[in-house]
Amino acid sequence: MAKIQIGLIGFGYWGPNLARNINANPRSILSCIADIDFERREIAGNMYPHVEVVEDPQVILKSPQIDVVAIATPVSSHFELARQAIENGKHVWIEKPLAATSAESAELVDLARQKHRILMVDHTFLFTSSVKKIHEVIRAGELGNILYYDSVRVNLGLIQSDVNVIWDLAPHDLSIMDFVLEQKPKAISVHGKCHFGTKLEEMAYLSLYYQNNLMAHLHVNWLSPVKIRHTLIGGDRKMLAWNDLDNENKVNVYDKGVEVMQRENGYAALTQYRIGNMASPALANKEALTEELDYLLDCIEGGQEPFNNGEAGHRVVEILEAADHSLKNSGKLIELLP
Amino acid sequence: MAKIQIGLIGFGYWGPNLARNINANPRSILSCIADIDFERREIAGNMYPHVEVVEDPQVILKSPQIDVVAIATPVSSHFELARQAIENGKHVWIEKPLAATSAESAELVDLARQKHRILMVDHTFLFTSSVKKIHEVIRAGELGNILYYDSVRVNLGLIQSDVNVIWDLAPHDLSIMDFVLEQKPKAISVHGKCHFGTKLEEMAYLSLYYQNNLMAHLHVNWLSPVKIRHTLIGGDRKMLAWNDLDNENKVNVYDKGVEVMQRENGYAALTQYRIGNMASPALANKEALTEELDYLLDCIEGGQEPFNNGEAGHRVVEILEAADHSLKNSGKLIELLP
Amino acid sequence: MAKIQIGLIGFGYWGPNLARNINANPRSILSCIADIDFERREIAGNMYPHVEVVEDPQVILKSPQIDVVAIATPVSSHFELARQAIENGKHVWIEKPLAATSAESAELVDLARQKHRILMVDHTFLFTSSVKKIHEVIRAGELGNILYYDSVRVNLGLIQSDVNVIWDLAPHDLSIMDFVLEQKPKAISVHGKCHFGTKLEEMAYLSLYYQNNLMAHLHVNWLSPVKIRHTLIGGDRKMLAWNDLDNENKVNVYDKGVEVMQRENGYAALTQYRIGNMASPALANKEALTEELDYLLDCIEGGQEPFNNGEAGHRVVEILEAADHSLKNSGKLIELLP
Amino acid sequence: MAKIQIGLIGFGYWGPNLARNINANPRSILSCIADIDFERREIAGNMYPHVEVVEDPQVILKSPQIDVVAIATPVSSHFELARQAIENGKHVWIEKPLAATSAESAELVDLARQKHRILMVDHTFLFTSSVKKIHEVIRAGELGNILYYDSVRVNLGLIQSDVNVIWDLAPHDLSIMDFVLEQKPKAISVHGKCHFGTKLEEMAYLSLYYQNNLMAHLHVNWLSPVKIRHTLIGGDRKMLAWNDLDNENKVNVYDKGVEVMQRENGYAALTQYRIGNMASPALANKEALTEELDYLLDCIEGGQEPFNNGEAGHRVVEILEAADHSLKNSGKLIELLP
Repeated sequence: MAKIQIGLIGFGYWGPNLARNINANPRSILSCIADIDFERREIAGNMYPHVEVVEDPQVILKSPQIDVVAIATPVSSHFELARQAIENGKHVWIEKPLAATSAESAELVDLARQKHRILMVDHTFLFTSSVKKIHEVIRAGELGNILYYDSVRVNLGLIQSDVNVIWDLAPHDLSIMDFVLEQKPKAISVHGKCHFGTKLEEMAYLSLYYQNNLMAHLHVNWLSPVKIRHTLIGGDRKMLAWNDLDNENKVNVYDKGVEVMQRENGYAALTQYRIGNMASPALANKEALTEELDYLLDCIEGGQEPFNNGEAGHRVVEILEAADHSLKNSGKLIELLP
Repeated sequence: MAKIQIGLIGFGYWGPNLARNINANPRSILSCIADIDFERREIAGNMYPHVEVVEDPQVILKSPQIDVVAIATPVSSHFELARQAIENGKHVWIEKPLAATSAESAELVDLARQKHRILMVDHTFLFTSSVKKIHEVIRAGELGNILYYDSVRVNLGLIQSDVNVIWDLAPHDLSIMDFVLEQKPKAISVHGKCHFGTKLEEMAYLSLYYQNNLMAHLHVNWLSPVKIRHTLIGGDRKMLAWNDLDNENKVNVYDKGVEVMQRENGYAALTQYRIGNMASPALANKEALTEELDYLLDCIEGGQEPFNNGEAGHRVVEILEAADHSLKNSGKLIELLP
Repeated sequence: MAKIQIGLIGFGYWGPNLARNINANPRSILSCIADIDFERREIAGNMYPHVEVVEDPQVILKSPQIDVVAIATPVSSHFELARQAIENGKHVWIEKPLAATSAESAELVDLARQKHRILMVDHTFLFTSSVKKIHEVIRAGELGNILYYDSVRVNLGLIQSDVNVIWDLAPHDLSIMDFVLEQKPKAISVHGKCHFGTKLEEMAYLSLYYQNNLMAHLHVNWLSPVKIRHTLIGGDRKMLAWNDLDNENKVNVYDKGVEVMQRENGYAALTQYRIGNMASPALANKEALTEELDYLLDCIEGGQEPFNNGEAGHRVVEILEAADHSLKNSGKLIELLP
Repeated sequence: MAKIQIGLIGFGYWGPNLARNINANPRSILSCIADIDFERREIAGNMYPHVEVVEDPQVILKSPQIDVVAIATPVSSHFELARQAIENGKHVWIEKPLAATSAESAELVDLARQKHRILMVDHTFLFTSSVKKIHEVIRAGELGNILYYDSVRVNLGLIQSDVNVIWDLAPHDLSIMDFVLEQKPKAISVHGKCHFGTKLEEMAYLSLYYQNNLMAHLHVNWLSPVKIRHTLIGGDRKMLAWNDLDNENKVNVYDKGVEVMQRENGYAALTQYRIGNMASPALANKEALTEELDYLLDCIEGGQEPFNNGEAGHRVVEILEAADHSLKNSGKLIELLP
């Protein structure tokens, strides 16, 4: 089978990781790299002397040889680049979040459907062995009914100049939650602060309400002196803690829980807790992006719709938009469409 | 100087720690222990054969020898026990939270003032070397202006049957914040959930707004499989992380921050971050309760008003009350009196 | 059944823990405390006003009421105090190490046997839920054949003035190894250093050889800036890591190992490793000393020989003595009697 | 200045890291890759389509264009490859350990000197910001006199088929010690075990004696279920702990120590310890290999002798050889040449 030709637009922070994987994969060819910045082009050209490096993304968008356009540019440019790529008959592999508004992301979804092109959003975490394992554990019913999902994703961050911390960090959690909880939130309330006069919040707390009394909460923050990547998922059978910075045991499943007994007098419930063993499943040690690219190539070759498609990206953008709306209204509870 | 006689009401979970310290302190005498539970009295009697152990707290409240009544009973009983103790001319050392409502706590404050009695609330954390050091660091201006205060206090908890998780765990943080931030919050919004039909939430997220753009957030949770006691305090000069479960370096001060530069074109601010050294100050290794009891005895002997007095306890109860109000109204923002 | 009367000699560093447990246990009575230091007696008297506090240990050794003598004094005094106690018909509960020489410890063992008295050595760690679990895991064959035992026990220590770091810290590991490995070492080699002119080494590395290719190694050190209590036990089926300072998961059993395949050409063996799940068993949260005292009282009441008896203590002293011998001879390999 | 042409022999475990850096560095050109394994060549060719990939290392050794030969092959082949490269007038950048025997490494050192070629050993750790900082701290006298150096380097390892664990892992520590202690050990004693019939030990404990009472100890182990990279350096002024797996604070300097006072009676020394602040210096976040390659290019362009030259590599090989000798003789103390 002929190798799949991929053009990459954007060689900034994340683009080099895409380039490295596209170049190393025996099924794909890194045909062209476009970046508007001279220095970035120079670096790209030095690393990949056999690859065409250009300033103008139109070279990629219009190239007849290129099958897939990988887009790793700022969010504001996503819609226009992706739209043209699909219009020109190319598959798209695009950074998260899919677009800057839900109107844009909806349009891209429609367009991809019409044109029978794959629109895959790079929700990289869904291809980590940790998230795959968490999905598997929840699917198997090991945790029972999920009571809550709590994530802390903070560090001293590269403060973005075009989006606030929610649009930068929360897509990770929102795409993971979409994948492992398999339901959409019903409402959201967000509190946050902007301290440096940029009009873009550097810290935010998102509370999300789901069906069946499930609650989720995210803390995203660019102003933390320490890096934390810690997620708790409480179920009524077992509970799970995922520390993405732990080198040895990232995902720990605790056989712990709370038992509730009705008191004889009927007045109040009596609760006690149960502490059992912890199990930390072995996790494969393969780079997520490598897995994701393999999956993209499989989808293209097999004509298969990826699960991290435009719809998945659109669901994330819808929540981000509602989050901003709540944030600007002092945490007002915003209902989300079903 | 004659030893100060202390009677202890409540020998349940926390009472034994008070008893042990009162008994060991050379300036105080543990005169009497009262508990309504037979088994607890038996344990108390076995440990302190030289101490009177009784069922009826009135033995303590009315004893002419007793100078101080230490109260370690459920919150609902705080007001009545403390009121009687003060009315009978005794000083009071009472567990947090001070009372079940702000009306009650206000009345206790007034009564103590009228009767010239010390009403000291056992906000134990204020006497830890960690919190003392944090207070010192902030006071010295080392952190600059405080941008945020974030605390996670979660574990698989003893689910209380009379109060929700906020009344159980948040008083620790609220008293620490009152002490180190030296200002009162202006508004609060709280999200939380009760999963076990007890009508008492087991998990909650509190967002607090202060003057000068300072924001605080607390996550309190009885349903976490892992115990976390982690606080971040971000300033515009330095940042602090306090991990109370770290045996070696509990309080770490990071010379890290964000610098904002106005872009020449005036369109957007450009930020970059600065990463300097971390310093972890040496902390004394003395039990907080031992320090607190010494301070109580000092206050009594010196006729001095403690800083963790009824007013401090009342400020915490006011916030707890507002937190419940917000929680029952889906996170509605509740303004707090100045 | 009448309560068992216990006299305690030594109220220094560890004695207060014995006193607290003896006092709290409903089956025992803390009859008398002896300490040669005035200040320690004052503290003891203040904490236990109902207990006789004396300077002269003979008061305890000769008291007709006392059933058990608990000895928590420096090692050099162990032999004489224990000898007299047994001669006077008392059971003995003695701190580790049992005695200052193997000749002394052997004599105590003989004497206790002749006099039908219990001689129990306070190898406290054997009563922790961690060591019990490790014992259970090894006994059940979960680890397979044990390949090695490695322990690091270091901290900035209270440098003893009468014994080196080996006699201070290694008895913990040696007693645990004696218990869980269920065999005696065949030879020992020790390297160490004394840096402060005290003629007592502050750091040492002990290598111990056992049957069946099993090797053990201990690092004990008073000069470490950080506290480490970490033990690795490698088996040919599974491997175990015990971090005694981890609050959540102290004992972790890894389904990891190495598989060896003979190469077809017969030249060299080919090895590969296997990485499976990790399991961290739930551990009871009871104070080890409380368990040990209960066991002592059971042994006395039931006329049962404790497993941590004089023989167990003697085996530890034999190794300590050989360790010193090797240390003084630059790590010379010293054979141990079977 | 013309770019420096580098040929790489060995594209196995480490080689790809060299290739990536050589290719990305704007001052060097990756001219050719040689590997005897077909699959490895295929991978190399896929990643670097613009680079010649060959089976026979002679293509590189004899190429007139190539300035530097980078050697990342098994130790047994080091001597012959490096010898030919130098004979052919090329600079050599070679993996650790430099050679399989000290006779070989001495010969390479001589040859490089005669031919005025740079022979640089890839002791990568010397180019990490952690080791640079440790070197700087010790040089500045911050730790005072060094009392001990203790390293634990264990994990479930890729068991090598040609060398034991000492030759695989200890070169890291030995090269670091050579660099930061700035002196050679006087004697060594090693204990270890081989459990899988390969005649190559999978675990070993190395005790090294230096002048001035300084002692070093290394624990290297391929059979540990957990990965540990932890080094303690005790000085008489301060102490340092380096945890290479800690993402936040790798190098911690503790203002802790022991004070010794002569007792008045002259009988025994009295010691007490001092616990001050801890400081964790900020560390640059640049890949060590990138720094090392820059340094190599600097040395070549400037005609400068690298500090990690053949002599440094030879000193490490001498110790490895003595270590094996001690290991085969049950830990016999082996003296090292000054």
